Amino acid sequence: MNKGSTTRENIIVKSAELFNTYGYHGCSLSDIMKATQLQKGGIYNHFKNKDEIAVEAFDYNYTKVFKRFREVLNEAKTPLEKLYKVVDAYASFAEDPVVKGGGCPIFNTAMDATNSHPELKRKARLGIDGLLTYIRIKLKDGIKEGVFKPSIDVDEVASLFIMTLEGALVMSRVSDSKKFVNTAAAFVKNYIKTNIVLE
Amino acid sequence: MNKGSTTRENIIVKSAELFNTYGYHGCSLSDIMKATQLQKGGIYNHFKNKDEIAVEAFDYNYTKVFKRFREVLNEAKTPLEKLYKVVDAYASFAEDPVVKGGGCPIFNTAMDATNSHPELKRKARLGIDGLLTYIRIKLKDGIKEGVFKPSIDVDEVASLFIMTLEGALVMSRVSDSKKFVNTAAAFVKNYIKTNIVLE
Repeated sequence: MNKGSTTRENIIVKSAELFNTYGYHGCSLSDIMKATQLQKGGIYNHFKNKDEIAVEAFDYNYTKVFKRFREVLNEAKTPLEKLYKVVDAYASFAEDPVVKGGGCPIFNTAMDATNSHPELKRKARLGIDGLLTYIRIKLKDGIKEGVFKPSIDVDEVASLFIMTLEGALVMSRVSDSKKFVNTAAAFVKNYIKTNIVLE
Repeated sequence: MNKGSTTRENIIVKSAELFNTYGYHGCSLSDIMKATQLQKGGIYNHFKNKDEIAVEAFDYNYTKVFKRFREVLNEAKTPLEKLYKVVDAYASFAEDPVVKGGGCPIFNTAMDATNSHPELKRKARLGIDGLLTYIRIKLKDGIKEGVFKPSIDVDEVASLFIMTLEGALVMSRVSDSKKFVNTAAAFVKNYIKTNIVLE
């Protein structure tokens, strides 16, 4: 990696933390300058504007979320184990934040950008679609292998898991208590056992 | 109401919409000046700073959320009807936003203020506690009247309802689709029927 790409990478990494912590509007170019110890020109050498940085920062955070999922899911073998591990991966966001600022960076961006930044909104929507797809695939695998009930509505169940776990992450962050994430994780795991797994 | 309090009220109403739409950092004093058609001095006549406006704007939005709940719950008589109506009140946020900008203003503030505004964070946390308390009371009423299972964990169930419905509201907003809110509402109503109501 030459110096140019190292600097570029550094701007993305630091901005990704700032955007996840304070949101798009809560993070100014001077915040990025301070965090990267670069002058304005040093940043504009690599990016057209704050928008371009924000979009790349989102992609960077999105990749970190999926890396976390891969790590936690690594040892799981069966579709049932994998589904439980998806829940563990979510719960791990509260224990050990994927990105400084906490929570799920995809969901944080969804909240932050819905009314103010169409491109980030689009990316956050695609990000959530990615999470939904991830769970749908695990559910379909289980049905195919004959361990999950074929009658389950894969779309509905995947949506339910994400909204419960993401909603809980927000509640845990604002109340500085893992209680809500733990409740959500226990609920989803119990739901899997009771409503997903074939007797 | 004299002119002073009318102006003050106008500043709060307009700022409450702006803060719910763009967040605390996404809304500047000039945005508030533009929305209220007031000069800086006209605003500082009534408020010390943007912080003070934001805190009062939150209280205003919080009151609107509870007013919506009261309106929707108005005709419900039994604890079961009331619990269903709580779900309807939430679902109504997607159909007919309580405040411009959409979603639940309390949850929006929770996301927005967690890392950047301790006083708004505290207020959002208390707001969510208020919503949880609201549902816990309905659950306890139903147990007392002998229509809900006495074995239900009131704290857990209230948390589960809020995280599911709030999470769904975010997902519906970012995807411009009521699908997620409808899924959450149907799920919670079915949960009430299956897990809360005594056979």
